[in-house]
Amino acid sequence: MTEKGLLIVLSGPSGVGKGTVRQAIFSRGEREFIYSISATTRKAREGEVDGKDYFFKEREEFERMIADNELLEYTEYVGNYYGTPIDYVRRTLDTGKDIFLEIEVQGAMQVKERMPEGIFIFLTPPDMTELESRIVNRGTDESPIIKQRMEKAIEELSLMRYYDYAVENDTVENAVQKVLGIIQSEHLKVSRILDTICADERE
Amino acid sequence: MTEKGLLIVLSGPSGVGKGTVRQAIFSRGEREFIYSISATTRKAREGEVDGKDYFFKEREEFERMIADNELLEYTEYVGNYYGTPIDYVRRTLDTGKDIFLEIEVQGAMQVKERMPEGIFIFLTPPDMTELESRIVNRGTDESPIIKQRMEKAIEELSLMRYYDYAVENDTVENAVQKVLGIIQSEHLKVSRILDTICADERE
Repeated sequence: MTEKGLLIVLSGPSGVGKGTVRQAIFSRGEREFIYSISATTRKAREGEVDGKDYFFKEREEFERMIADNELLEYTEYVGNYYGTPIDYVRRTLDTGKDIFLEIEVQGAMQVKERMPEGIFIFLTPPDMTELESRIVNRGTDESPIIKQRMEKAIEELSLMRYYDYAVENDTVENAVQKVLGIIQSEHLKVSRILDTICADERE
Repeated sequence: MTEKGLLIVLSGPSGVGKGTVRQAIFSRGEREFIYSISATTRKAREGEVDGKDYFFKEREEFERMIADNELLEYTEYVGNYYGTPIDYVRRTLDTGKDIFLEIEVQGAMQVKERMPEGIFIFLTPPDMTELESRIVNRGTDESPIIKQRMEKAIEELSLMRYYDYAVENDTVENAVQKVLGIIQSEHLKVSRILDTICADERE
């Protein structure tokens, strides 16, 4: 009776501290996660191992993977491709292990399209809740800086609605505890437990 | 921007330890819950206060409440009625406070019908997972006692599917931590946060 692993996607606006929260979660070691290994066309740096740090690919091969829908999400950054091979993710989930992706919002939206069953967690800046209140009670006497921050918050809010959970990154410790709590609760969902039992029944 | 409170229903087979888990949650005091006050036709004992320990009702009044659909759930036990006034629950949720019900499975199913938006948590005996495996890999050489326990587990499983979460009561501490984690995660759901913001927008 192997429960399928969960695909956990941690995302949020750039600069919100996704990397720090992800590192803290992994270093806590409370749950066993597989960190998703990316494919890239960037050259391997000294000490980097193919299949451990990255799956190193030639540009031609990477573009074939894009064309053949073999990537859960991908992006181009300073001339190199980076992406998540869907096959690696699926095989990991089948072994019952949770896989953890920490990616930018554009990538997260691509993942959502391919694997909507994932758990999508949106990390928000610590003052977003306060900004939300301001948006709702919009005044006319706001300073240009407040207005700019509000516009950014509105933009972020409009992305947030595609996610399952929103976690405020007020402190790393709080955010880590909440993300771990979400993952634990998702594993306790009856729908998930029954899926597992019924899949066994069919075997 | 007041988020609506959550209706939390903790239930499970009799003898599983619901009361102990509920008491431990309340004595931890980590979250503020309102414990649902029951209405009853039983006479007040010395020191019991109407509206605090129970809402004490005459039998005629209680039966009128049943007829008028004013109870979220009710049951009759050794000649007295016990029930949960729906109005009290609704008013508490509107103030943004979570309300906590710890009730038998029959009562929980009544609540589910009236307020399906509640969070339904099924507390399972510690060996249920093991029994589940046995059910799936059903053997013919089982002892009558094992068979009896399996039948009970099947019955419990068939109830579990109406719940949102299943928490194994292996130790009280573990069960409490999981229930609190579920409630925290439910408050982090984007759908709930956006509901709050959008309700404010409409005001």
